[in-house]
Amino acid sequence: MVTTGFVGLGSMGRHMASRLLRADTALVVNDVNPASVEALQRQGARPAASPRAVADEAGIIFCSLPTPDVVDQVIFGEDGLCHGSAVRTIVDLSTTGPRMSERIGDALRERGIAFVDAPVSGGTSGAEAGTLTLMISGDGAAIDAVMPSLRHIGSNLFVVGDKAGQGQTVKLANNMLFASNLVGAYEATALAVAGGVAPERLLEVINASSGRSYVTEKRIDPPVLDRDFAVRFATGLLRKDVKLALQEAEASGALLFVARAAAQFLDIAKAEGMADEDYTALIRLFERWNGAEVRRSRTEAL
Amino acid sequence: MVTTGFVGLGSMGRHMASRLLRADTALVVNDVNPASVEALQRQGARPAASPRAVADEAGIIFCSLPTPDVVDQVIFGEDGLCHGSAVRTIVDLSTTGPRMSERIGDALRERGIAFVDAPVSGGTSGAEAGTLTLMISGDGAAIDAVMPSLRHIGSNLFVVGDKAGQGQTVKLANNMLFASNLVGAYEATALAVAGGVAPERLLEVINASSGRSYVTEKRIDPPVLDRDFAVRFATGLLRKDVKLALQEAEASGALLFVARAAAQFLDIAKAEGMADEDYTALIRLFERWNGAEVRRSRTEAL
Amino acid sequence: MVTTGFVGLGSMGRHMASRLLRADTALVVNDVNPASVEALQRQGARPAASPRAVADEAGIIFCSLPTPDVVDQVIFGEDGLCHGSAVRTIVDLSTTGPRMSERIGDALRERGIAFVDAPVSGGTSGAEAGTLTLMISGDGAAIDAVMPSLRHIGSNLFVVGDKAGQGQTVKLANNMLFASNLVGAYEATALAVAGGVAPERLLEVINASSGRSYVTEKRIDPPVLDRDFAVRFATGLLRKDVKLALQEAEASGALLFVARAAAQFLDIAKAEGMADEDYTALIRLFERWNGAEVRRSRTEAL
Amino acid sequence: MVTTGFVGLGSMGRHMASRLLRADTALVVNDVNPASVEALQRQGARPAASPRAVADEAGIIFCSLPTPDVVDQVIFGEDGLCHGSAVRTIVDLSTTGPRMSERIGDALRERGIAFVDAPVSGGTSGAEAGTLTLMISGDGAAIDAVMPSLRHIGSNLFVVGDKAGQGQTVKLANNMLFASNLVGAYEATALAVAGGVAPERLLEVINASSGRSYVTEKRIDPPVLDRDFAVRFATGLLRKDVKLALQEAEASGALLFVARAAAQFLDIAKAEGMADEDYTALIRLFERWNGAEVRRSRTEAL
Ligand SMILES: NC(=O)C1=CN([C@@H]2O[C@H](COP(=O)(O)OP(=O)(O)OC[C@H]3O[C@@H](n4cnc5c(N)ncnc54)[C@H](OP(=O)(O)O)[C@@H]3O)[C@@H](O)[C@H]2O)C=CC1
Ligand SMILES: NC(=O)C1=CN([C@@H]2O[C@H](COP(=O)(O)OP(=O)(O)OC[C@H]3O[C@@H](n4cnc5c(N)ncnc54)[C@H](OP(=O)(O)O)[C@@H]3O)[C@@H](O)[C@H]2O)C=CC1
Ligand SMILES: NC(=O)C1=CN([C@@H]2O[C@H](COP(=O)(O)OP(=O)(O)OC[C@H]3O[C@@H](n4cnc5c(N)ncnc54)[C@H](OP(=O)(O)O)[C@@H]3O)[C@@H](O)[C@H]2O)C=CC1
Repeated sequence: MVTTGFVGLGSMGRHMASRLLRADTALVVNDVNPASVEALQRQGARPAASPRAVADEAGIIFCSLPTPDVVDQVIFGEDGLCHGSAVRTIVDLSTTGPRMSERIGDALRERGIAFVDAPVSGGTSGAEAGTLTLMISGDGAAIDAVMPSLRHIGSNLFVVGDKAGQGQTVKLANNMLFASNLVGAYEATALAVAGGVAPERLLEVINASSGRSYVTEKRIDPPVLDRDFAVRFATGLLRKDVKLALQEAEASGALLFVARAAAQFLDIAKAEGMADEDYTALIRLFERWNGAEVRRSRTEAL
Repeated sequence: MVTTGFVGLGSMGRHMASRLLRADTALVVNDVNPASVEALQRQGARPAASPRAVADEAGIIFCSLPTPDVVDQVIFGEDGLCHGSAVRTIVDLSTTGPRMSERIGDALRERGIAFVDAPVSGGTSGAEAGTLTLMISGDGAAIDAVMPSLRHIGSNLFVVGDKAGQGQTVKLANNMLFASNLVGAYEATALAVAGGVAPERLLEVINASSGRSYVTEKRIDPPVLDRDFAVRFATGLLRKDVKLALQEAEASGALLFVARAAAQFLDIAKAEGMADEDYTALIRLFERWNGAEVRRSRTEAL
Repeated sequence: MVTTGFVGLGSMGRHMASRLLRADTALVVNDVNPASVEALQRQGARPAASPRAVADEAGIIFCSLPTPDVVDQVIFGEDGLCHGSAVRTIVDLSTTGPRMSERIGDALRERGIAFVDAPVSGGTSGAEAGTLTLMISGDGAAIDAVMPSLRHIGSNLFVVGDKAGQGQTVKLANNMLFASNLVGAYEATALAVAGGVAPERLLEVINASSGRSYVTEKRIDPPVLDRDFAVRFATGLLRKDVKLALQEAEASGALLFVARAAAQFLDIAKAEGMADEDYTALIRLFERWNGAEVRRSRTEAL
Repeated sequence: MVTTGFVGLGSMGRHMASRLLRADTALVVNDVNPASVEALQRQGARPAASPRAVADEAGIIFCSLPTPDVVDQVIFGEDGLCHGSAVRTIVDLSTTGPRMSERIGDALRERGIAFVDAPVSGGTSGAEAGTLTLMISGDGAAIDAVMPSLRHIGSNLFVVGDKAGQGQTVKLANNMLFASNLVGAYEATALAVAGGVAPERLLEVINASSGRSYVTEKRIDPPVLDRDFAVRFATGLLRKDVKLALQEAEASGALLFVARAAAQFLDIAKAEGMADEDYTALIRLFERWNGAEVRRSRTEAL
């Protein structure tokens, strides 16, 4: 049995690694947090002392790490993956932005290591259930080699291109668009409610018309109309993805209008102390400003 | 057979009046343009010399007029509908904005005439096919009375409230949101393409993810990717609806972020001479600015 | 002695009328508020029962009225100025926007009455002291005729064009620009303070450099740095002028970027309940959001 | 005589170094471009093979370098200044942003080297004439030590704080504000001109009113009104400074409104191919969009 590696056993990584183990993959793991490593060890993983130690044993290695800087350190640092003797392919499941991913791919290629870019969406619940969406790009042969493992991690596997970084671009474009659609839908709903329209009436029309989106179909009714603001995806994380997309636009010289306005709104939301609240709670800013609550109308409850 | 009236036989009104005639409605019509009247006459409608003359004969009267000012004139002018002896209910199918509609409803109520607010969407092709969406509000009994006629005009009839103006609010909120989603989707697609991603790959992911909308599902692939920019809904008309929504927000004190950015973009598009082009052609601005065409990738064509 | 008329004796008008009286002008006045009329009567003015009654006696008439609608009513209403037998020239000192002013000028010309557009700036204290700035436009001969009176009202008299409405355009352009410069200066100062710079150090540099403006020279130090937020010009009034300018841009098709952002900020300020506060208090929003107060540094006080 | 060092002999650095030489400073210089070094050699400077070689001889060293990365490399690279045996104080005249400058200051302090942050404004003509404005921050004693040299370089020396990075903050805040005021003034002028007002009439009023700024006083009349668009400060350079300021706002969490709109406009200007044109040429975008040229009116020429 080929040995596989996993570095970064956080909120996302622990579930993904766990699923690989349950699928009978021999797994060698590493994380700066000993408790995270122990948890996986109890499930049958073998711990390694450093990323390099992982790469001395495993041919395919997955990373799920918090920031671009940490990914850089884990791969190219003194005890990094790139110095390992066994490693042939590295798959990065983190969100790092296209430039970073492209740079990693280029640097690894020079060392004879293949790189696959595979950021995910679907949150921790999707990671646990193995229903993540993966946006995969990189060398075709390398992608083929890791596909069997990826199928244990996600249920929507999209190969979006043959260059590292394209997976990142797709992920950022989608999340940026989600943020734009979200702010647009919340402000449109709040506008109609300020004009005396019952929000469920408005959504019924929009969802049969040109204004419909994932947000109007799923993220207002029920959550907002039922006043359910439990944290599923924090405003601060959404803002982080939008800002990465804006940086990418800056770097490539692509113009943005609506996404910049969404970012401005998210900046204000953060300044108003809402970074840790679920993004559905953002409706409250419009409610406060407009003086009208977006609530299911009473007649509806009959 | 009860006589029904119709004022305004333009691009939209001619088709709606025609459908009523074919459904065996006795129709008396008026329009400032004699040619428009003659066309309906040939289909069996009776012409009337003025809106007032229509209202001397018909109990239910429909209007489909270009601007709020014209609606005001047609209803309350010297020879206006409100002075007719037979009229009991007026249905306005025009897009005029909520304030105007509310004001008309109030003024007619004082004169004992019921008012139903019923702006439409679906374009001239929808008017011809009878597949328009109608956003209806006003007094319940009056709505019940006109519903049989409206069923000949549209196939999606939404009663959104019991006050005139709410139909307008819903229409403007939907169209404003459509414009926001549109600009957002075009700029996100253009960003990804500038980053080297094939647009059909991007859309495949987005349409299975949180960024999806009517725009990403229907208004990029095929029209944009096939470079089909035939005029269906002119940019100038979309801009007009967005501006009406912004005015409503101004009047009600509702805050908007993303819609203002979409309006700014539409202002630039108009200044760049694109008001008469289809809104799908707006992608060309991003293509020019970003230096990358949003075109189906060649490998896709295989 | 020629009799002069004055309609609208509010916060601004009362002072201007008063100054004309003290300059030995025979004045006939009108206002819907009897108390306002009585106050001027005690200073020697003659009251008239309606605008028309004013216009039956006076050849030159000044208006200082709250909104475009009221100006329209006072001039063209049933008992309006235009029906008077003596009136030859009407001077409007109100802020109404260029379109309105142009329309008034055209309609009065048809009736053989000259119209001078002369919006003011300088506030109630300027009105009291006779130090207002006037932005005057209209027919040259009519302007010459009213100039002697205007010199009692303001100390900076600018003739900006020969068509009614141009005075309004200049006033709105200036106030819109002031608002842009204001928001820009407040956010730049707040940014530097968040970066640990003493605001008085920053202003010293800016006022010797390319960033300087009336705002950086006069409206931060002393008022903001001394935490003096006494109401001189309410945020709501500034917002009103900016919105009139935006409407004018909409009508003429002129594109705006920075002014729209300033308007968005003023919308938020209004939604946050600051419409009645002085515009200097707007710095507090940035202080709250950025978490840093724009205060004179202690070392400076030594 | 103490030996002084200078690294970076580009458009700005060559003039500053030259002025120091003429003030009888013994100068050892380095630049990657041999021609630049030779030019200074002919004026009496001694060349050094690397930054480190400069730092082996000079106690005080000035840098004038293109980007933050290059500054980092020159100071901390293998052959960097920080490894020199003679260096006591490094003065950075480049625009690098506050974070970078702070980080350099901290890293140098650990090695016992003082750091002075002194970005300049005034362009190449100011560098040649010695009339630059300098925004200086850092340790007080170090500033005192370099002040005599700085007096040969600039004529407006502002000490804005005692921490490296504050000079950068002040420079970015000023330039960001200049860009905001510029876009605001151009759009306001273009709006008034579209409304039929002669621009010189408008400016006369604004320059006596609340809308005035360095831009309205110096950067429209004469340059724009005389159609003089010779390149003094390229749009692309202005945009770069605004973007650095936006990054700083992002990092410190400071909210910006007007500056973001100015940046959006500058993005469009760049996408329209104007990065290399003087910023005064930006008026042309408004002229094209609004359909009205901002030109001195003919009557004025009399
Ligand atoms: N959370 C979510 O809902 C989603 C996250 N993502 C992306 O997935 C990636 C992972 O996110 P998430 O799991 O939430 O992040 P976490 O911070 O929870 O997990 C990262 C893990 O990596 C560990 N780590 C940090 N530095 C090192 C190092 N040098 N060597 C080894 N291990 C290290 C961390 O340890 P320690 O905790 O001690 O720092 C932590 O256990 C990110 O890029 C994120 O953007 C994508 C979609 C959804
Ligand atoms: N076109 C579209 O795709 C859609 C339009 N709408 C809305 O529907 C409404 C009608 O639009 P549309 O049909 O395109 O507009 P048109 O301008 O084509 O039609 C309006 C008709 O009213 C006539 N008219 C104008 N003034 C009077 C008057 N005083 N008395 C009688 N008749 C008069 C016009 O005559 P003349 O031509 O001589 O001016 C014209 O025939 C508008 O409010 C529009 O916003 C809604 C959805 C889609
Ligand atoms: N206030 C300021 O600092 C500045 C104001 N302006 C402009 O000057 C104009 C006047 O402002 P301001 O004096 O503050 O406004 P006010 O509302 O204080 O004054 C308007 C006066 O007109 C009276 N009035 C209203 N309707 C009629 C009518 N039909 N016939 C006769 N009189 C009537 C009002 O009476 P009542 O009070 O009963 O309504 C009031 O006394 C406005 O256009 C404003 O934009 C310009 C620069 C600065």
